[in-house]
Amino acid sequence: MSGVLAEVTGNLGSIGYGLAAIGPGIGIGIIYGQGVQAIARQPEAYGLIRQNMILGFVFAEALALIGIALAFAFRA
Amino acid sequence: MSGVLAEVTGNLGSIGYGLAAIGPGIGIGIIYGQGVQAIARQPEAYGLIRQNMILGFVFAEALALIGIALAFAFRA
Amino acid sequence: MSGVLAEVTGNLGSIGYGLAAIGPGIGIGIIYGQGVQAIARQPEAYGLIRQNMILGFVFAEALALIGIALAFAFRA
Repeated sequence: MSGVLAEVTGNLGSIGYGLAAIGPGIGIGIIYGQGVQAIARQPEAYGLIRQNMILGFVFAEALALIGIALAFAFRA
Repeated sequence: MSGVLAEVTGNLGSIGYGLAAIGPGIGIGIIYGQGVQAIARQPEAYGLIRQNMILGFVFAEALALIGIALAFAFRA
Repeated sequence: MSGVLAEVTGNLGSIGYGLAAIGPGIGIGIIYGQGVQAIARQPEAYGLIRQNMILGFVFAEALALIGIALAFAFRA
């Protein structure tokens, strides 16, 4: 292995996914953190609150899943 | 394996998308987190609150989707 | 190993996972931080609150675990 500049292997898709997971990770935390606060404030609105927590979670999670798809789309 | 600079494969578009997804991921989390708080505070305004939560979500999500489009636009 | 510019070895998957762990780490912290606050505010809603804290934790944790899976998927 002479003349090799660096022995780093892997696909940039891993880094892309890693970056794409930062936002949703924090976002889901905020949704559920504020969500349980909302439940504590008004337990009788639990149906509406939970339904919107799940909806927001799905929207945020999608961003990370797109990162996985892109990693495989650009696989050399 | 001589003359190999690095065995890193992939497209920078993955990283670009990953970076583009950080903000919307956090932003969507804030929208839905604060949104369910608003629902808990005033459940009778549910229609208006939900409608604006969706609108904000769409605006934030668009930023990440542009990142995908750009990754494919600059595909070598 | 003469003439080598840098002796960096390893796989980008490690960096990808490291990045992927940032968001969920913060997110899970927010969930449990706000969660115990919610329990303190309304201990009688403990069942609902705890159940949603666990759910949010699982969703956020999954993002980091996907990062591990991806690191092995792109192993050279």
